Formats: sequence, C-alpha cells, structure tokens
Amino acid sequence: MTVLDPELRALLEATPVSTLSSALRKRGLGDVFIDGVAANRPGHRMVGTARTLRLLPFRADLFATHGGGFNAQKQAIDALGDGDVLVVDARGVREAGTIGDILVTRAKVRGAAGVVTDGAVRDAAQIAAIGLPVFSQSAHPAVLGRRHVPWEHDVPIACGGATVMPGDVIVGDDDGVIVIPAAVVAEVAADAAAQEREDAWVVEQVEAGNPIDGLFPPNAEWAARYRAATEHEEQR
Amino acid sequence: MTVLDPELRALLEATPVSTLSSALRKRGLGDVFIDGVAANRPGHRMVGTARTLRLLPFRADLFATHGGGFNAQKQAIDALGDGDVLVVDARGVREAGTIGDILVTRAKVRGAAGVVTDGAVRDAAQIAAIGLPVFSQSAHPAVLGRRHVPWEHDVPIACGGATVMPGDVIVGDDDGVIVIPAAVVAEVAADAAAQEREDAWVVEQVEAGNPIDGLFPPNAEWAARYRAATEHEEQR
Amino acid sequence: MTVLDPELRALLEATPVSTLSSALRKRGLGDVFIDGVAANRPGHRMVGTARTLRLLPFRADLFATHGGGFNAQKQAIDALGDGDVLVVDARGVREAGTIGDILVTRAKVRGAAGVVTDGAVRDAAQIAAIGLPVFSQSAHPAVLGRRHVPWEHDVPIACGGATVMPGDVIVGDDDGVIVIPAAVVAEVAADAAAQEREDAWVVEQVEAGNPIDGLFPPNAEWAARYRAATEHEEQR
Amino acid sequence: MTVLDPELRALLEATPVSTLSSALRKRGLGDVFIDGVAANRPGHRMVGTARTLRLLPFRADLFATHGGGFNAQKQAIDALGDGDVLVVDARGVREAGTIGDILVTRAKVRGAAGVVTDGAVRDAAQIAAIGLPVFSQSAHPAVLGRRHVPWEHDVPIACGGATVMPGDVIVGDDDGVIVIPAAVVAEVAADAAAQEREDAWVVEQVEAGNPIDGLFPPNAEWAARYRAATEHEEQR
Amino acid sequence: MTVLDPELRALLEATPVSTLSSALRKRGLGDVFIDGVAANRPGHRMVGTARTLRLLPFRADLFATHGGGFNAQKQAIDALGDGDVLVVDARGVREAGTIGDILVTRAKVRGAAGVVTDGAVRDAAQIAAIGLPVFSQSAHPAVLGRRHVPWEHDVPIACGGATVMPGDVIVGDDDGVIVIPAAVVAEVAADAAAQEREDAWVVEQVEAGNPIDGLFPPNAEWAARYRAATEHEEQR
Amino acid sequence: MTVLDPELRALLEATPVSTLSSALRKRGLGDVFIDGVAANRPGHRMVGTARTLRLLPFRADLFATHGGGFNAQKQAIDALGDGDVLVVDARGVREAGTIGDILVTRAKVRGAAGVVTDGAVRDAAQIAAIGLPVFSQSAHPAVLGRRHVPWEHDVPIACGGATVMPGDVIVGDDDGVIVIPAAVVAEVAADAAAQEREDAWVVEQVEAGNPIDGLFPPNAEWAARYRAATEHEEQR
Repeated sequence: MTVLDPELRALLEATPVSTLSSALRKRGLGDVFIDGVAANRPGHRMVGTARTLRLLPFRADLFATHGGGFNAQKQAIDALGDGDVLVVDARGVREAGTIGDILVTRAKVRGAAGVVTDGAVRDAAQIAAIGLPVFSQSAHPAVLGRRHVPWEHDVPIACGGATVMPGDVIVGDDDGVIVIPAAVVAEVAADAAAQEREDAWVVEQVEAGNPIDGLFPPNAEWAARYRAATEHEEQR
Repeated sequence: MTVLDPELRALLEATPVSTLSSALRKRGLGDVFIDGVAANRPGHRMVGTARTLRLLPFRADLFATHGGGFNAQKQAIDALGDGDVLVVDARGVREAGTIGDILVTRAKVRGAAGVVTDGAVRDAAQIAAIGLPVFSQSAHPAVLGRRHVPWEHDVPIACGGATVMPGDVIVGDDDGVIVIPAAVVAEVAADAAAQEREDAWVVEQVEAGNPIDGLFPPNAEWAARYRAATEHEEQR
Repeated sequence: MTVLDPELRALLEATPVSTLSSALRKRGLGDVFIDGVAANRPGHRMVGTARTLRLLPFRADLFATHGGGFNAQKQAIDALGDGDVLVVDARGVREAGTIGDILVTRAKVRGAAGVVTDGAVRDAAQIAAIGLPVFSQSAHPAVLGRRHVPWEHDVPIACGGATVMPGDVIVGDDDGVIVIPAAVVAEVAADAAAQEREDAWVVEQVEAGNPIDGLFPPNAEWAARYRAATEHEEQR
Repeated sequence: MTVLDPELRALLEATPVSTLSSALRKRGLGDVFIDGVAANRPGHRMVGTARTLRLLPFRADLFATHGGGFNAQKQAIDALGDGDVLVVDARGVREAGTIGDILVTRAKVRGAAGVVTDGAVRDAAQIAAIGLPVFSQSAHPAVLGRRHVPWEHDVPIACGGATVMPGDVIVGDDDGVIVIPAAVVAEVAADAAAQEREDAWVVEQVEAGNPIDGLFPPNAEWAARYRAATEHEEQR
Repeated sequence: MTVLDPELRALLEATPVSTLSSALRKRGLGDVFIDGVAANRPGHRMVGTARTLRLLPFRADLFATHGGGFNAQKQAIDALGDGDVLVVDARGVREAGTIGDILVTRAKVRGAAGVVTDGAVRDAAQIAAIGLPVFSQSAHPAVLGRRHVPWEHDVPIACGGATVMPGDVIVGDDDGVIVIPAAVVAEVAADAAAQEREDAWVVEQVEAGNPIDGLFPPNAEWAARYRAATEHEEQR
Repeated sequence: MTVLDPELRALLEATPVSTLSSALRKRGLGDVFIDGVAANRPGHRMVGTARTLRLLPFRADLFATHGGGFNAQKQAIDALGDGDVLVVDARGVREAGTIGDILVTRAKVRGAAGVVTDGAVRDAAQIAAIGLPVFSQSAHPAVLGRRHVPWEHDVPIACGGATVMPGDVIVGDDDGVIVIPAAVVAEVAADAAAQEREDAWVVEQVEAGNPIDGLFPPNAEWAARYRAATEHEEQR
C-alpha cells in the first residue's frame, strides 16, 4: 500500500516534521496534526504508509461478537506490510491500552515502520525494548476491552484530531506526528528538504552573530547571500 | 428501519431514561450513555430508531471532495424516515455547528423523532422554535466545515462515549440520552415499565412518611405489601 | 445538628451568597466555594446545616459489602433532620447519578433544606417537581453503583473543591454554593446583611446617574452621605 | 468609539450570529468566535462596539497597587458610552466573578449594549433583573480579587479564544458571540442579511415538503426560482 | 500491616502490572487503576502494602488546627513500616506539592517500598536522587498548605480514581499503578505469573515469524504446543 | 534590564525553586507559579530577568499586519540581553509552536538565560541540542501563525496562570518555574538560602534515623541543636 520509494523515504527521514508541516501549510493543508501523542523514546523518527484500525466505545453486546479471537485489531496487525505505520483511532481515551508487546513484536516482524495511537499502550517498558517507534498518548496496564471494541481496519479514521486515510504518509519525531496526503508527498518532501537546507544556513548565520532582523525572514540582501552560498555549494 | 411498533413506542415514551438504563444494566449493558448532551428545551422527551452520521476532522483535501453539495450530512437528512433519530458523531468537538435550522426543519418534515449530536448546533433559537427535540453539547454559530468533513451515514459510530448502531433505539429526557440495542428493546421496556410502577408506589410510601430503611430496597414485609397492592390494583 | 435559629436563618435567606462570601473573605476564609454546581431551578435559594455523605470510587469487592441494602447513602437520608442540607462528595464525577427522586422525596419529608452533590442527579425532571433545592454538577440516568461505593456519612468531606464539615452552614443561590464554618456564621451573616444594605443604597445612587468613581468604593464624601442616609432611616 | 449608525445597528440586530459568521468566513475571517460564553437570558440579542478590559492573574504585590479604588475595571465601566459592549479578558477562569450588579447597573445607565466576559459574573440573579445582556462563562460568588488584578482598559485583548480590538463590532445571540472587524462590518451585515433572506426562503421550501437535494445548496433550477421569487418581491 | 511474605513479594516484583491487571479483571475487579500517575524514574518497579493519607481542600480555619506541627502527613510518614507504600489522596490537584525530599528520605529510612500521590511532589530532582520509587501526577514547587489540609491517615481513600484500603497491595511499573485487594493477592500473583510465562512463549513464537491468527489467543493446535513446551520445561 | 548581580545570581542558581517559593509565600506572595511547563531537559536550572512577549489569538486581518517580517516575536528575540529570560504568553494553547530552533539559537547568542512559554515549542530535538534551558507546555510542529498573532513585547503578561512583569526574576528547575518580583529578590534569595541550609541539615538527621516528630518542624530541642551546629560551622 506504499507510495514511498526508498529515495522519498530517505528524504522524509532526513527532514523534521516541523519543516514538512510548513510545506503542507503552504498548500492549504493546515490540519494534519495527530495531536497529544509522543514517542516512547525521545529521538525516535518514524516514516511510513498509514494502515488504520478503528476502535468503538465498549458495549457488551458488540464486544461479544467483535471483541474476541482474531478480531479487527489482530487482523490489522497480521496485515501490516513493509514500511507501514498502524494508526489507531482510540478517541483519545486514556483509561485502557490499545496495543501491547505481543502485537508490537508482530508488527516489527512484519516490517512495519511504527505505531500511532491516540489511546494508551500496554507493556510500555517491553515495547520500548522492542525498538519499534510507538507514538501514544500515555501508558495504561488495562486491556483494550476495558474501553473499546476493535471494529474494523483500513478505513478512514480520526486520530488525535486529524483524519487519516489508508495510504496517507505518516511522519513522526519529537515534535509530534503529521499526516501527508499521498497525492502531495513527493512535492512536500522536496520543498521541505529545500527549506531545511535554508534553515540550516540561517542557523549558521545566527550562530555567527547576525541579528534576526533582515535575516529571518530574509530581506533582499540576505536572500542574495543565500543564493550565492547555495550556488557555490552546488558547484562543488 | 424501525423495530418500534406504536405500543412499544408508547411504553418507552412513558418510561424515564433512568429506569430504562437500570433495566439495561441488569442485562450487563452498562455502557449505553451518550454523555455530555442536553435537550434544547427542558422537558423534551425523545424516542426513535437510530440513523447515523459520521463526521471526520476537517482536512482541506477531503473537504474539497466530500464537503460540498449533497454531502453525507444532507443525504442522511433526506433519508430520515418516520420515527427516526439522527445521531451525529462529532467527536465531542464544541467549536462548530453540526446541524442548523434548515436541516432540522427537513428532519421534522420527514417525520423524524429527533436529533442527537455530541458536537454543537447552529441556529439554536430557530431550532427551539421548530419543536423537534435536539440534544447537543452546546450551540455554536460556525458552519460544520470549520472543524468537520461530512463523511458517511448509516454506519456504526461513536457518540458521547457510546457506540451507536443504525437500528438501535434511542431514548432521551432531562437525565440524558441512552442507546438500547434493538434485540433487547421489548424486554427492557417491559421490565422498566414494571420497575417504574414499583418506584411510583415507593414514592407514595415515602410521601406518607415511611423511612427508606426496609422500604427501598424492600425487605420481605414491604415486598409483600407491594405485591398485595399490585394484585389489588390488577383486580380492579 | 443545627446552629441556625430562625432569626439567623431568615437573615441568611435574605442575603446573597456573593455578599456572604465577601464577609468570609474579610475573615481570611477565601476558600469556601463548592464550585461547579448549579441549582436545578434558577432562583432557588437554600440555607441549612451540613450533613455529609462520602462516596468512594466503584470497586466490585467493596460494592459487594457496602453497596446494597440500607447503605451509607440511605442511612444519610433517613438521618436528615429539619433544616439540614445533605452534601455529597462524588469527586466531581459526571458519569453516574448520586441521588434520585425517591431519596429526594424522603429528604423533603424529613424537613431537609436541600441537597448538594458534585456528581450528577438521576430523575432530574421528577426532582424538579418535588421542589426541594438540589444543586448538582449535571444530570445522569445511571445509578450510583456505576461509579461509586456509598461509604460513610457525617464525616468531613471534599465537595466541589471545598472542605465541608458536618455542622457547617451551607448557603446556595444562582451564584453558587458556599460553606460557612459554624463558629463564624452569626457574625458573617450580620456583616453581610449590613453590606447588602449599603450595596442596595449604592445601586440606587448609580441608578440615579452617579458615576462609580468615588462612590464605589466610597470616598469620604459618599461615605458620609451613606451614614447620613442610614441614620435617617434608623430614626424612622 | 462607534462605527454603528442606526441603520447598520438595526441590520445587525435582525441578523443571526450564525449567518454573520458565514459572511465573515467568506472573507477569510474564520476565527472570530468568543467561545464558551452564554447569555444570562435565552433569547438575548446584543449588538455593540467593543470596549475592552484586561485582567491579569492575581498577584498580591500588583493587587496592592492596581486592585483597589477606582481601578481599571471601574474606569472601564465609567467610560462606557452609548451602544458600547464591554469585553473582559479573564483568561477563561471560572473561580471568581469579574463583574457584579452595581457595575452592570452603571453600564446600563451609560447606555451600554451589553457585557461579555470569559470569566464568571457575580450577582447573577440581580444582573438578570437589570435586563442588560451579559454573556459569561458561568456565575461565581467570589470577588474579582480572588483570581485577578484589573490591569488596563481599551487595549487589544483575548476573550474566549478570539482577539478583540477596541472598536470591533460585537454581536451575540443564543448561538454565541462573534467579533466583526470594524473595516468590514458594513459589507458583512449586508451580505448576511441577503443570505438570511435566502435561508428564510429555503426554509419555506423545506416546510413545503421539498427535499434538501438540489435545494440547499441550490442547483441551477432552484437558484432560478429564488431569483424569480426575489425579483417578484422587490417589485412589490 | 503486610500480607506480603518474601516469596509473594518476589513473584509480584517479577510480574508486569499489565498482566496482574488481567488476572484481577478475570475476577471481576476491573476498576483497580490509580490513573494519571507516573514513576519519577522510567523503569522503577514498586511492590508494597498500602498505607494511606487523606488530604482535604485548603480551608484557613481547618489548616490552623490541622496543618502545622506533627500533622497527619508527618504522622503517616513516621508510621511507615518495612515494605509499605504510602498512598496519598490529593484529589488530582496539580497546583501544590504533597510530599518533599525530607519526608521521602524518612520513608526510605523506615523501609517503605514507595509513595503514590495523585497530586504533585516537591523537590523532584532531590527525590529522584534518593532512589525510592515515587509515583505522582507531576512536580510542583509549592508546599502542601497551598491547596490542602493534611487530615488523617490509614483510612480508606480515593487516589487517581481508585479506592485504596489500608492493607491493599500496591504494584507500580511503567504502565501505571494498580491496587490488589489483600484477599486475592496470592491467587492473582500466581495466575499472572502463569500468564506471563505463556505470554513470553507467545512472544518467542511471534519473533520466529508466526502470525497472530490462531496463536494469540491460541487455537487448539497452539494451545497443545504450549502445553507440550511447558511440560518439557517442567521435566527439565 | 537586570537586577541580578553575579552574587545574587549565584545564590539563586544554588537554591531550589521549592525553597524560594516558600520564602515568597512567607511574604504573602503565594501566586507566583508558571504552571504546566517543564524543562526540555531534566536537571536544567534557569535564572534570569524577565523579558516578555505577548501573543494574541490568530485573526487573519491582524496577522496580515502583525504576523510577518520582523514581528514582535522576532523583535523580542533580537532585544534579549545577557541573563534575560524570555517569557511568552501563549494562553496555554498546545496546538502550535511559539518558538523554534533559529530563534532559540539567537537567544543563546544574545546571552539569554532561557525561555519560558505556556504554549508549545517547535524543533524540540534541535532546541535540546542547543543547550539553552527552554520550559514549555509541550512540543508541536506547527508554526506560531496557526494559532497566534505576535503582538507586542516587554509588557505585563500572563503565563501559566501567573502575571509576569518585565524585570521580574524568573527561576526554573525540575519542580517548575516561579516569578520573583524584583523588589524582594535579594531578601527572598537570602532567606531561601538559609532555609536550604537548614533543610539539608534536617535531611542529614533523618538519614541518621531520627523521626520526623519534633525534628520537622523543629521543637525547641532540635532548634537548639541546629543553632549549635550552625554556630560551630560558622566558626570554622
């Protein structure tokens, strides 16, 4: 289900989420943030293609038919492919886990790139040891069935206030997680990488003692200097 | 889409939501509450069959394809039938309306029994004048498109922390709104009506000065008195 | 359990909660507010002596021993006396009722002056018809046992962020509910009544077109006029 | 400080806040909502020119210099003019009043059109009797000094998540309160009034049994009918 | 006050909180979570017997009699014994510390196994250096008296949404903190340890590339394989 | 803009925020906490003089005039001086960054002592690498313009529930951030340092096995011992 060839993936892995979000914003895509989630390990970066899982609020009659056995949650996990990110719609509920160490292990074996849930994770310590990036709202020891019915997978969902479509590209780092519609991912990645190069050059100028005024955003003079520096670099 | 014949409907209309929820609880159905919503007019009672509308978080690219024209919200309204209650999954978002006076007017013309949204309503004053029971979290002047994309209708949804399936029975009063799975609605209504008769009799005993101790819940003596009073009444 | 003789009660009933709270504040008592509760009918005024009920979070093993029969909640109700206000510690939990129409009826028969709960009430419509002032956070159809174990009564509790001791005086109106320690209630009532007379006189001056500057708070000139007006009135 | 001539004021008073907000949205002004406030009486409508009051969090040393006497709050009130609406930045704090009956009386005498605060009001019952529209988050008996220092007036502020500039036009009804920048108020009012006429006509068609599909939003056929109906009306 | 012999303690220390909570759930004990607290150091594990401290909301008159000297908080600390966990009912209030480095030092000297508070801790950096596991909602520099009156110790309390009885067993790790009623702790620990062995075996199968379907939860074939593997192991 | 000579700064850097807050409390300054913020690196300590930045809620018309170019945010950064702490009023909004790595780099070059924002930071990982202490509510990848208009700098602001005046002294550590009015900073620092010496001595006594009773707070006997120990130390 991926639109990510190795080159595009590499570009996204090298670009901060903040810069990617600015490139999305320039295209009118300002509501692409899965808010309220954080990586289980600082410094984790995650890039992948969205696969989705939709949980519904616990109801005894529906849990009886959909909760047990090889349910939608487990189907979603076994169906993950290389480079996929599983995104879980848990309605922001904190009081139950939505995934534990067994299923995260399976996700890693399947080659998944990560997991995002706006609910909690179980077995947080064990999951951290597995090494797969998992972004969640918090940890909680309770099983999913305390608050949820696993309902269906690979349908459009809401997660952390953002809509996620299967096939969207998901990128996460210490700033948070964003959703990039597949149709724009290549151009967004290219724009953001260019911006990142410029920002890095600006940081150098600031470190050298230059004031913000005129430099960021650049006036004509600083813009010319950046072009000159860039040309110089490209000639190398 | 209804399981409600006139007799069953009448029984539900005469029975408080609180008593119905107790009958559900006795069957292990304790998570049936659409929380955080209130009727636009105190004293409103609402009984009907669930039709559903699922909104997703606003995203510009998806709104472009799903937001305008005869969208899922408007399709849901035009498809309402006699005795239906439209239940809207708005993820508890307060900062935008999810229905306004034009669509509520249409719902009434179609014979709908009411509307429930865990988001806000627009045109609250005009809607109150229409007279159809509308349960919402609050009022807000903004259009739906400020926070939502109307996505699909007549699918399972979450509303106010409860799962609602199309075809469930929805009952609302000043205490709140509950969801009764269609499979149990007849027996729940019968049980609750019986409980309501007993509670009314208990209130009479309390008004006559009897203490709670032994009466509520009843010890053997008070249980016998109630049976005697009930038999007497049934013989009349 | 009352410290309220008829005269003191009448004084408190005639004095707004806002003015009483100012008199408490002058004595260093600034944290006396049961926040987040509202009367079931606008305009309700309530004055009485605190009796308390402490609920604990639901736990199945404890509910089995403390939840059923003539439990602490029902004991508290049967023990209410003339002019008492039952104050319920429900930890601000919205998702379950803490009292319903049968027990409120009993409270009224016992001569209670009202009920305050920082949880929800069941049977809100029926309770409104009974006429006893009931201040709560909201209404909810679920029974107490959904979230609580009734634990003990007439012990110190927390309610709406305030500590309530059995025997404190509780006063409520459309602004909210306050707790007056028994030791200071007489002097607080007297001070507040005097302040209320002055405020009413200030309102008259404002209605007559006088600016706030110098009048409220009063400079020497306006203070003198008030003294003159008051003396005049007292001589009548 | 007003931009509101009588005709424009009359137009705004006849137009729902929801429709005005749509006209603002068409101009790219989608963040104009003072959220979380409600009128002290259902049905209240309020139109006026913004005057502002900025409160800061309570700090004993600053309250000593700015809290007493003819402070910024009282200066703001005495400075109100005909048709002004006082908007108070209380940072959404619920635990203290920000205005009481004496100052609301003065505001009315000065000809003010209303008050909006994202904090609480004191003396809610007395204020309701005065009749001036007051939109607030809630009622609370405590004085302003419990949580605030009255700091300055007639400066840009935040209120309920919106920025309010002195001189903006403020309109409130049962849906909420919006801020209209002075530069666009005339055209926004005209557009919204036109939209309101069309919406009223649409409601009539819906009441006559027409489906939403094609009518709202209108297809070519319905658009033509509306133009015809409008021309007819204009010719009368 | 302990029910924890060394063997049982060792078993609990080796078993994740998530697995213990599943064993409690199988016994109908699903509401045993002290929510919203986290260990001051990732990886901390804590097992002990509950001792309790009940704080009430700050009120000047009650703080005058109960706040100073050798108050209930300090009595609770000096009374701690080997293997005890002090659990503090702070009503989820964030804006004040409930314990600082001096008292945590004393708790460690007394042999306590840890501290849990649903309020904040003071001196977070110093407490982390002491090494005793402390689970709290957050850190805050203010003294307890800013928001609380230390009231009594070793009574039933609410903490993080759970009821805690003195003598309950408290277990905490990176997933959170749970309460195990003393009456079931031995059987819960045994069940959970068995489950943990099975889960570890399942993880091995998943790491070996087996799909979730049929394995977790196990079908007849996988259940037989686990039994065989276990018997083999037991024979060693 | 500083009142901090090197000696005073050193004293503040060696004294925990918790102890400084107690010294403020003794002077009646109990509301000095910037709540809800945490350092980007545990163990960070920050001492400096407050410079302020006031953001207002996003509004398209105001962003057009104030959002771009060398706006108030950037002016504030370029104006920072040695030992300054920039404090940002972001109204507690989580859904947008308020400062990123370029401006934090500039702040460091200017010699600033740190940044505090009750909103989010962008580029959290890069900022952590810079090494300047930054206290924020969270991280978010979005630019400031998603929710804010940078309005003005070096005016009184609210941040995390506290009022901050330009020139106040700001101190932060793992417990949180406090505001010390410039007029009392010298005496507060001295008092707190004395208290800190006493607390350290008390910790030693506790580590030696002494009970809390009588020692903390000290009775006459322990107070005498402390004086003796202190005199001895001073004579060295």
